Amino acid sequence: MTETAPRPTLEAVAARAGVSRATVSRVVNGADGVREPLVERVRRAVEELGYVPNQAARSLVTRRHDAVAVVVAEPETRVFADPFFALQLRGISKELTAHDNQLVLLLTEGRDDHARVGRYLAGGHVDGALVFSLHLDDPLPGLIQRAGVPTVFGGRPGWSDGTTDVVYVDSDNRGGAREAVRHLAGLGRTRVAHITGPLDQTSAADRLDGYRDVMGDADPGLVVRGDFTPAGGERAMRELLDRCPDVDAVFAANDLTASGALRVLRESGRRVPEEVAVIGFDDMLPVAEQTDPPLTTVRQDIEEMGRLMARLLLGGLGPGDAGAAPTGVVLPTTLVRRTSA
Amino acid sequence: MTETAPRPTLEAVAARAGVSRATVSRVVNGADGVREPLVERVRRAVEELGYVPNQAARSLVTRRHDAVAVVVAEPETRVFADPFFALQLRGISKELTAHDNQLVLLLTEGRDDHARVGRYLAGGHVDGALVFSLHLDDPLPGLIQRAGVPTVFGGRPGWSDGTTDVVYVDSDNRGGAREAVRHLAGLGRTRVAHITGPLDQTSAADRLDGYRDVMGDADPGLVVRGDFTPAGGERAMRELLDRCPDVDAVFAANDLTASGALRVLRESGRRVPEEVAVIGFDDMLPVAEQTDPPLTTVRQDIEEMGRLMARLLLGGLGPGDAGAAPTGVVLPTTLVRRTSA
Repeated sequence: MTETAPRPTLEAVAARAGVSRATVSRVVNGADGVREPLVERVRRAVEELGYVPNQAARSLVTRRHDAVAVVVAEPETRVFADPFFALQLRGISKELTAHDNQLVLLLTEGRDDHARVGRYLAGGHVDGALVFSLHLDDPLPGLIQRAGVPTVFGGRPGWSDGTTDVVYVDSDNRGGAREAVRHLAGLGRTRVAHITGPLDQTSAADRLDGYRDVMGDADPGLVVRGDFTPAGGERAMRELLDRCPDVDAVFAANDLTASGALRVLRESGRRVPEEVAVIGFDDMLPVAEQTDPPLTTVRQDIEEMGRLMARLLLGGLGPGDAGAAPTGVVLPTTLVRRTSA
Repeated sequence: MTETAPRPTLEAVAARAGVSRATVSRVVNGADGVREPLVERVRRAVEELGYVPNQAARSLVTRRHDAVAVVVAEPETRVFADPFFALQLRGISKELTAHDNQLVLLLTEGRDDHARVGRYLAGGHVDGALVFSLHLDDPLPGLIQRAGVPTVFGGRPGWSDGTTDVVYVDSDNRGGAREAVRHLAGLGRTRVAHITGPLDQTSAADRLDGYRDVMGDADPGLVVRGDFTPAGGERAMRELLDRCPDVDAVFAANDLTASGALRVLRESGRRVPEEVAVIGFDDMLPVAEQTDPPLTTVRQDIEEMGRLMARLLLGGLGPGDAGAAPTGVVLPTTLVRRTSA
């Protein structure tokens, strides 16, 4: 432990400024009703002594911490391996910093730790929470509701039926998927496959719905399960080639999945896009530009999603604003054409 | 904002259990002196109502939050781009989780935000802090000392003269560098260069000292400044080839730097290791295995450093333990031989 100098107390500030404890407390907590010369004297004493108000005590009065928690319902190892989270965090970090709010990232090893996250959120350490990557059966939403902190979700929560007042930011996953599959159909492809994401996440389920909107009751063998990782994309592509060797197009649920699929196609000697056209989702850079060939993909503005989540939360933290927040904000996607389709 | 059910209060628990508020408070805060049947009734009421104690209030009594802050004195973008931090966080996360402590990662956009980090640490939200990547003139150590939370540093802090009671975990940077440079000299190399890290960090300064321990007053033109990034390694290697075209060995301050240097050597047609031998530092995987050729490097156990930091902090948080903590723990390094030297 570092040897620490004793922290200057409220009493020390009061003595230095020649005012009462109550006056110091009012100034420090930003309350009205203290005359300007006294405010000035207290401020000078605070500065000279390097006084830091005990925020645990202060927050009992003001109920503000100027801190926002970010919770990613994934193991710590995935948070750092997936550039998606880094991009969202970048947007969040910029927005919170611009409003002098501290970003508090709560990491876990796995689902067993979510109860502890709930306790921290309930513990009066943050003004609100931004929550990502929830799976359908995750206990976290219930824990967060009990914690009673304002929350904005990243991605439409799967348990929400649209009637309860859940605030989230999402991309138009279904519409983006439709556009991708229509583009493949427009190229004359008739055996268009889909490698899904983990279907207990709404982003993956919505992209599958978009595929089905266009393909209708196509051969169900053309839909193979992936998990948003390159390794999952490789596994799924092998299964596809095995099951439907006449496949002539693949819509992959994200760019990492597409990168794995492209590797397997190359190994198996299929030319992309001539024999098999491939489209991803995200427009994650540098991944989407560095695949061989460069990836045609559905772009979503991931950093902007993070920024918008933070903006909605901060906007709703003011008194009386909570009711004004919209329920769901869905950002548009765009098809980015490179070489793979 | 999510519409939240009103949080059950202490009063509601007291009414349900048929006891006084004070009794509920004592049970919830783990105090002694409440008879077992009453404890049982309170616990049942807490469970039935889903009561979550207000930790801001509770922590004023218990002064424990079961949460530890991790502060990386680098912009958020670097934290996610450098695998070094991910590895240390992995070690920390495992250790904290094993002791049911919440990992609270405090992110910043830059040095201007460090005052806000200091306020959060001082605010009674965590029991201690693990602090990384301090630069020599960083205001953070002072802010942390004022915050009065127990702290363990990752890497020897540059401002510590060894006499104050600062706890840190470090690798034997100087000894590891000596071993690397001796290995190069042992191969018969006489024009051994060093690409440094940012010299306002002790890890970089210590590695330069280790190089000088072996090379003595060699041509000072052989020491070029880098910054622990691949781009910095590229720049420095170009400068080196320009200035000392007869260079026959390079000790790079870390593996990322070495990967940049190897790229420039390849471009300029120098064969590695035949014409120029290269050694890195870290044994960062997969970087060190995937360079061309695979990198000989000085291994430090980064994940173990993180685990040990957490262990020292948790060990020192108990009453009366603070004095027992060692001041600095320095882990040994080992030379890992691959192809580049």
